Amino acid sequence: MSAYHDFVSPNADYAANFGDKGSLALAPTKKLAIVTCMDARLNAYAHLGIKEGEAHIIRNAGGVAKDALRSIIISQRLLGTREIAVFHHTGCGMLTFDTPQLRKLVKESDPGNTALQAVDNIDFLEFPDLEQSVKDDVTYLKENPLVLPETTVTGWIYEVETGKIRRVV
Amino acid sequence: MSAYHDFVSPNADYAANFGDKGSLALAPTKKLAIVTCMDARLNAYAHLGIKEGEAHIIRNAGGVAKDALRSIIISQRLLGTREIAVFHHTGCGMLTFDTPQLRKLVKESDPGNTALQAVDNIDFLEFPDLEQSVKDDVTYLKENPLVLPETTVTGWIYEVETGKIRRVV
Repeated sequence: MSAYHDFVSPNADYAANFGDKGSLALAPTKKLAIVTCMDARLNAYAHLGIKEGEAHIIRNAGGVAKDALRSIIISQRLLGTREIAVFHHTGCGMLTFDTPQLRKLVKESDPGNTALQAVDNIDFLEFPDLEQSVKDDVTYLKENPLVLPETTVTGWIYEVETGKIRRVV
Repeated sequence: MSAYHDFVSPNADYAANFGDKGSLALAPTKKLAIVTCMDARLNAYAHLGIKEGEAHIIRNAGGVAKDALRSIIISQRLLGTREIAVFHHTGCGMLTFDTPQLRKLVKESDPGNTALQAVDNIDFLEFPDLEQSVKDDVTYLKENPLVLPETTVTGWIYEVETGKIRRVV
């Protein structure tokens, strides 16, 4: 049975207790964009105390800033955010492989399928060192000309073992 | 005062009540990846009843599938997900502009700055029709050779006015 069937009942409860959230504005009230990993264990609303309407939340494999650039430009230029917090986390899958390995895995999964060669065009943006990856992403955002120069950029690690966050930069 | 100062107290509460979440596995238990918008009003954990450990959550401006492809490949090939639910939403900023307009806005914000011409390399992936954008993204994923053919793909609209979800495809 597909997991989407499980959406129905919780969504009915959420809508029944929606309160005044229907009047929230499009622009985030904290002028904040959070970049974090897609990892299933990370619930940024809960572990950062974010409430609906306060912050853009951009998530991808790793919480990689480069992959978030399109979204960040829209967030800043059209919706007024002026602060970015980048979160990577312990136990991240991005620490466990590299792009050549994953390309090989994909192509060898169905060797006769030439369409799979498209994977050679994808940089999976993995990182071998967690702390350094946070520093690198903060530097990337601070130095990128398409990110507004007045942006406050911070970098953090979330610990999946404890639920605690730690600021790196 | 930067918004990140507000992370400290809620995070201490979260960590103090972390329970047994430290033992959650890396791979999502529901074998599910959700693709949704970065919009500040969307709390997928709450409105879908998702709990920590159950699903990858990929978020970008619009909840655009194409922008999520790198993450989806990692999610499927390395972490075992076999279902994707794409959510777009009413009142989305992606319905309000187009790429040429945003490129112009960025370049004209600082006309002497030639580094801003890098924005001409970015496709902002906006969409003019909400329902069609969901259908298009589901088709994109079903037809993409790098997405596993056995994947269950569904497409949904979240209503920011009511908190309700509606399946499109």
